[in-house]
Amino acid sequence: MTDSESKRSIKAGLSPGSLIHVGERMVEKVRITVIDYDADNIFEKEVETVEECFRFRETSTVTWINIDGIHDAAVVEKLGTYFGLHPLILEDIMTTSQRPKMEDLGDAAYVVLKMIEYGTDCSDVVTEQMSLIFGRNFVLTFQERPGDTFDPVRERIRKGKGRIRKMGPDYLAYALIDAVVDDYFIVLERMGEQIEEIEDELVADPKKTTLNEIHAMKRQMIFLRKSAWPMRELISRLERAESPLIQKTTGIFLRDVYDHTIQIIDNIETFRDMLSGMLDMYLSSVSNRMNEVMKVLTIIGTIFIPLTFLVGVYGMNFKFMPELEWRGSYFVVWGVMIAVAVFLVAYFRRKKWL
Amino acid sequence: MTDSESKRSIKAGLSPGSLIHVGERMVEKVRITVIDYDADNIFEKEVETVEECFRFRETSTVTWINIDGIHDAAVVEKLGTYFGLHPLILEDIMTTSQRPKMEDLGDAAYVVLKMIEYGTDCSDVVTEQMSLIFGRNFVLTFQERPGDTFDPVRERIRKGKGRIRKMGPDYLAYALIDAVVDDYFIVLERMGEQIEEIEDELVADPKKTTLNEIHAMKRQMIFLRKSAWPMRELISRLERAESPLIQKTTGIFLRDVYDHTIQIIDNIETFRDMLSGMLDMYLSSVSNRMNEVMKVLTIIGTIFIPLTFLVGVYGMNFKFMPELEWRGSYFVVWGVMIAVAVFLVAYFRRKKWL
Amino acid sequence: MTDSESKRSIKAGLSPGSLIHVGERMVEKVRITVIDYDADNIFEKEVETVEECFRFRETSTVTWINIDGIHDAAVVEKLGTYFGLHPLILEDIMTTSQRPKMEDLGDAAYVVLKMIEYGTDCSDVVTEQMSLIFGRNFVLTFQERPGDTFDPVRERIRKGKGRIRKMGPDYLAYALIDAVVDDYFIVLERMGEQIEEIEDELVADPKKTTLNEIHAMKRQMIFLRKSAWPMRELISRLERAESPLIQKTTGIFLRDVYDHTIQIIDNIETFRDMLSGMLDMYLSSVSNRMNEVMKVLTIIGTIFIPLTFLVGVYGMNFKFMPELEWRGSYFVVWGVMIAVAVFLVAYFRRKKWL
Amino acid sequence: MTDSESKRSIKAGLSPGSLIHVGERMVEKVRITVIDYDADNIFEKEVETVEECFRFRETSTVTWINIDGIHDAAVVEKLGTYFGLHPLILEDIMTTSQRPKMEDLGDAAYVVLKMIEYGTDCSDVVTEQMSLIFGRNFVLTFQERPGDTFDPVRERIRKGKGRIRKMGPDYLAYALIDAVVDDYFIVLERMGEQIEEIEDELVADPKKTTLNEIHAMKRQMIFLRKSAWPMRELISRLERAESPLIQKTTGIFLRDVYDHTIQIIDNIETFRDMLSGMLDMYLSSVSNRMNEVMKVLTIIGTIFIPLTFLVGVYGMNFKFMPELEWRGSYFVVWGVMIAVAVFLVAYFRRKKWL
Amino acid sequence: MTDSESKRSIKAGLSPGSLIHVGERMVEKVRITVIDYDADNIFEKEVETVEECFRFRETSTVTWINIDGIHDAAVVEKLGTYFGLHPLILEDIMTTSQRPKMEDLGDAAYVVLKMIEYGTDCSDVVTEQMSLIFGRNFVLTFQERPGDTFDPVRERIRKGKGRIRKMGPDYLAYALIDAVVDDYFIVLERMGEQIEEIEDELVADPKKTTLNEIHAMKRQMIFLRKSAWPMRELISRLERAESPLIQKTTGIFLRDVYDHTIQIIDNIETFRDMLSGMLDMYLSSVSNRMNEVMKVLTIIGTIFIPLTFLVGVYGMNFKFMPELEWRGSYFVVWGVMIAVAVFLVAYFRRKKWL
Repeated sequence: MTDSESKRSIKAGLSPGSLIHVGERMVEKVRITVIDYDADNIFEKEVETVEECFRFRETSTVTWINIDGIHDAAVVEKLGTYFGLHPLILEDIMTTSQRPKMEDLGDAAYVVLKMIEYGTDCSDVVTEQMSLIFGRNFVLTFQERPGDTFDPVRERIRKGKGRIRKMGPDYLAYALIDAVVDDYFIVLERMGEQIEEIEDELVADPKKTTLNEIHAMKRQMIFLRKSAWPMRELISRLERAESPLIQKTTGIFLRDVYDHTIQIIDNIETFRDMLSGMLDMYLSSVSNRMNEVMKVLTIIGTIFIPLTFLVGVYGMNFKFMPELEWRGSYFVVWGVMIAVAVFLVAYFRRKKWL
Repeated sequence: MTDSESKRSIKAGLSPGSLIHVGERMVEKVRITVIDYDADNIFEKEVETVEECFRFRETSTVTWINIDGIHDAAVVEKLGTYFGLHPLILEDIMTTSQRPKMEDLGDAAYVVLKMIEYGTDCSDVVTEQMSLIFGRNFVLTFQERPGDTFDPVRERIRKGKGRIRKMGPDYLAYALIDAVVDDYFIVLERMGEQIEEIEDELVADPKKTTLNEIHAMKRQMIFLRKSAWPMRELISRLERAESPLIQKTTGIFLRDVYDHTIQIIDNIETFRDMLSGMLDMYLSSVSNRMNEVMKVLTIIGTIFIPLTFLVGVYGMNFKFMPELEWRGSYFVVWGVMIAVAVFLVAYFRRKKWL
Repeated sequence: MTDSESKRSIKAGLSPGSLIHVGERMVEKVRITVIDYDADNIFEKEVETVEECFRFRETSTVTWINIDGIHDAAVVEKLGTYFGLHPLILEDIMTTSQRPKMEDLGDAAYVVLKMIEYGTDCSDVVTEQMSLIFGRNFVLTFQERPGDTFDPVRERIRKGKGRIRKMGPDYLAYALIDAVVDDYFIVLERMGEQIEEIEDELVADPKKTTLNEIHAMKRQMIFLRKSAWPMRELISRLERAESPLIQKTTGIFLRDVYDHTIQIIDNIETFRDMLSGMLDMYLSSVSNRMNEVMKVLTIIGTIFIPLTFLVGVYGMNFKFMPELEWRGSYFVVWGVMIAVAVFLVAYFRRKKWL
Repeated sequence: MTDSESKRSIKAGLSPGSLIHVGERMVEKVRITVIDYDADNIFEKEVETVEECFRFRETSTVTWINIDGIHDAAVVEKLGTYFGLHPLILEDIMTTSQRPKMEDLGDAAYVVLKMIEYGTDCSDVVTEQMSLIFGRNFVLTFQERPGDTFDPVRERIRKGKGRIRKMGPDYLAYALIDAVVDDYFIVLERMGEQIEEIEDELVADPKKTTLNEIHAMKRQMIFLRKSAWPMRELISRLERAESPLIQKTTGIFLRDVYDHTIQIIDNIETFRDMLSGMLDMYLSSVSNRMNEVMKVLTIIGTIFIPLTFLVGVYGMNFKFMPELEWRGSYFVVWGVMIAVAVFLVAYFRRKKWL
Repeated sequence: MTDSESKRSIKAGLSPGSLIHVGERMVEKVRITVIDYDADNIFEKEVETVEECFRFRETSTVTWINIDGIHDAAVVEKLGTYFGLHPLILEDIMTTSQRPKMEDLGDAAYVVLKMIEYGTDCSDVVTEQMSLIFGRNFVLTFQERPGDTFDPVRERIRKGKGRIRKMGPDYLAYALIDAVVDDYFIVLERMGEQIEEIEDELVADPKKTTLNEIHAMKRQMIFLRKSAWPMRELISRLERAESPLIQKTTGIFLRDVYDHTIQIIDNIETFRDMLSGMLDMYLSSVSNRMNEVMKVLTIIGTIFIPLTFLVGVYGMNFKFMPELEWRGSYFVVWGVMIAVAVFLVAYFRRKKWL
């Protein structure tokens, strides 16, 4: 799990509201796309300058402005000033180490979420901060990395599927949050599959790498929790907010997303419990197997040690050792040795050590 | 424990309220049964089409429509439209990865529960989602797998035993929830027996499989908790709901089921604690036994090692070794060796190592 | 700890309020005793039939009816009907797997408690369900096993000691609950003594049985908690209940019992913590001792292994081995061997391995 | 930690309010001291009989009666009757197994605290119950063992230092509670030093006794917690109590003691965490060291085992063994053995086993 | 982590409000600096005596008096008396073992914080107590060690950057608290880097020192938590305080710091979880490696033991041992020995022990 939370310290000592991008820069150029729609019409464009978006503000249609690339303080500031956002909000947008949260700005609401997806090498989960502001007739979304999480929503707006075109910016905000939340399900399902694979491996043939995989999964769970728990809280606050921004019909949908976040947290906790159980099981099975091996080896050693002593006895060079002279004694010794070995094996068997 | 929660991701990006079945398809054909009754009359029928049920809605009698097989979106949608249910509720019914919950729909209440029972091979617990909606004069129940959990309730309705025929749909809903909750007791009792068996095994003769059984039980507890905790919450909400749907006389019964869910959770937690204790005990008893074995073996080795050294000494071929020439030295050496062995055994005894 | 909670499943599917005894049957015949008293008079009798008790209901004196043996549905039902109890309450009385709880019935209060005592073999704690109902001028108590927990209360009534004869049924109920709670102290004190004994054993000479004793105590704590925590809750509810049944002067006494339950829980939690610490200590001391043994044995082996190699060298039969011919070489070899042994012992000493 | 909570069971079955001393009897004779003061005058006396104290009650000055020795029921009862205390309060005073608590008696407040100090042998912490009752113009304190915790307060009263002489009994009560709380700091500081010593020992040279010390400290923490947590609660209740007994100016001081109790709990929890960490560290360092030893020893054994085999080969007595006849073979064998040993050592080095 | 909380006990028994410095004395001489400003003017001076500051109190400008060195009771007392502070507050300022807290003094607010930074040797985190009091037109800050945490704030005041010069003492207080909180981010980032280094070491080559480093980090986390959790609480109280001291515009900024403290706590908890995981991983990897070594060594031993026995057999000196006479038997024995060795290796391979 890659978490781009480093470098927050560069802001220490700065005046609050200073716009400095904290996080990794992922794109070269800021990309601004505008979708403006009502039940009947839709206008979609990738604009070059921030100013081009401003004219949409006055219209009564719903305007969704999406910014890919938040490292450019000028863009964020212009947009912020035009839409009347507090400098601290703009600072939060550019500081990608925010904790998911919701703030009621009076005539708008500010939501920070963590989007998650599998990285390019498909083995690690990557989080990215998504800021969403919605007001009376607009929705602004900010993120650094262009992604495809919002594509299904765009598609639904374009095709007028479902009720999205008929409803206001609060419903659009819901749809976007829902899209982010749905990504958690996708990631969790894949994790569930991985956990099952590890479990099968654990039963069939636990290897050293199994341990590392369990630990890696546990670590990912730590980070997932960190993103998911506050998400639940913020959606709950959004649902309960008695804001004129959120219409009653949208409230029902928010409650639905809220249920989803609870399911996500439930799954994360279940996975954590399962991984803990698997770790215990791995450790005890490895130690069991190890013990088994050591026991067998030690038993082999223990059987031969008295025999070796015995043959050592008749390897002594004393002048006077009566047994050496007797004819059958060699065979007698063999007999004794076989008897000792048989006795020991039988004894260990009876003690259930073998 | 089989949990058919996979595939939720196929819904990512879809418009909310899209009716897609998430879960395993268990039956070929949807089976719809209607029971319509009041204190004096009862009518029971397995209908072919959804539309056949509609006429019961207008009657003042209590109508219970049970759907086995929720994979058919058409059936669910028709019923939903007729009974005026929100699309999100219909979506929840078809998505079998819901968390147990209760929603007050104003003129109806929506309850999701997880039914549990032992699978066909009797070794694994299977959960299934049951959705229940009850309104002024109807109760709808939805599930995928036809089961016999509700049979005792049907029997009581048919025979008019108890107060069920004299009371309204809220009492029927209670009776159905109670039937689901009772199944938890059955499963928990069997688990209790299994735990006791494992415990006996643990005391008598802990084996490798004992460990796996403990781990398997612990895992099942994780899943049971996941189903039972929210169940308690939802019944509590149902009981406290100041809805005209729930009559005062039924409230007392709901409180009774609530007490049952607390007992279930209590039992689950007790089982968890016991299993943790058993795991600790297994591990320490195995390691104890292992140590015992290793100690005895090492002691045997330790006794023979000096003796082997001694016989080695007199196996050397030096020309001038006075002892070799003496007549009794062979027997003296034997004496020395026996003395050494006796001393070591005595020493280990005194140190309580043997 | 014996817990007779099995067989609850036989009630699955039954109509609520069905009177079936869930629990072990301990006595052959139901025994009903009546004590009727006011400040001046007292009447005490063991009656044959339930009906004999009924006449006391109308008197203004306090009537305490105690039932030993709750397996007889007829007795419980008659009494319940006469005192106007809800069928669910009667069902709870006969189902001995209840969780301690308190229910306000309006004109009466229903309390379920778990009585504990040491079993006949004095090694195991036995719990038993005690149901108590008190109203305006009566107290009913139900239990299966006849016991002596209530004897001191009876004695106080008979002798008119303390304020019991001057006060109402609420005070009697308090006195009975107090008697049950006092039994917990007795059991906990004995457990405290046992824990101290185990601790002494642990310091002096930890044995295998010590481990089993610790585990057994831990298990008993799990069950004690299960009985004690809800007891605290119910007494708190009783104390705070603004019921006309409970007079103000009795409230102070209830608060006192409440303090006792907190002390009990405190003690249980302390014992749990102590037992966990003792378990850790046992495991580390056993492993320490084991390691000590293995180390010493391995060191003995390690000292002799090079020596055995050396004597082996001069046991070789090569025709040309110059040392064999020299006169003093046997003694030189002995010297070398002693030197090696001394060096190794010194080395291990310096490394603090010995 | 000595906790004199045994024998509580002797009270089981007694009527509530029975005055029986539960605890260890520490002094032969009850000692009663009276201090009576206002801003200008002070009177201090050790009285012989309880009755001597009574006359102070009517005066408007602050009267502090301190009882050392609570085993004498007569003394406690007389005082209680005179000051109008409920029998249950008197019972609580004499039962030294109380949990720290506060009770509002209307015209007085009752506070139970646990005083702690190091025992005479300075290695164990001893707790003692202190009961404090303060009313409109008096403060009563009860304890069994005469101690010096209150001496600084007496000194301040005698010398009129600070504001104590100018203020009422609530301030005196505060000053006494503060003195008890300060003792916790003294004990905790010494424990902190002990923990640091153990830690240094742990880093430098972990011994077997280190483990016992850690366990002993952990156990003491369990008992300290048991005393400190409820103390915080009771002071919080005292501070928030809207009683005419506590003047506003005193409230600020109570809040200060409250802060102190939080600091105490904070320290206890920190110590617990540190001790847990130290235990982990001890166990892993011991096991690390043990493993190191075993590894080195096993490696030594492993190097000699093939060599011993080799010399065994040429100790065989076959008539026809060509190597035995060759002249240089003895030295060749030595060469081979040295080569094998060097190779094994190098191999183990490369594998980082040595 | 150095925590100068010792010596609190020297205050036991003293009258409350006694001004005694509890903590380490870090500077020789108390250093008092005054900054007095409004939007247009600024005056900054290091004064010699406390009295010099007094004249600023009457002005309407914002006055910030910073005291480096709190060991001088006279200075603190004079300032306290002049600004009308309660003796308990002055005592708290001088006692450096306070827990972070906030107190509403009516016409002023008192805030205690713990500043953290890396010590001079850069390996240990050092905490220091900072007391802050702000009223209608002044801010007082107290600390023992002169540090540079507040320098950026001073710079912003001097240069009139941001809104600081235009706002009141509440904003200045916020700016100072923010500066303290920012230091936590700096320390946490460095810890994050250290944790990552340890983790890399853990994967690549776990050494003994790795364990000590993990334990040291865990200990630091215990102390960080102790400072951070109450900090969150106090800022929350400050934000919610409906005090005329805090203006609405400042409230938004306080909420921002509050979010930061939550992020800090989140990070600390995440680090704790990660460190626990790393400890587990270290222990299991070390034990895995150890087991691997022991297994290989034991296997080598086990292969040679039967061979050594075999050569011992033919080293016996019996007169009559037919094999010794046969010509090829030496080579046959070699063959047998090689066969045994190959068989054992193959067997161990097949069992996956090698």
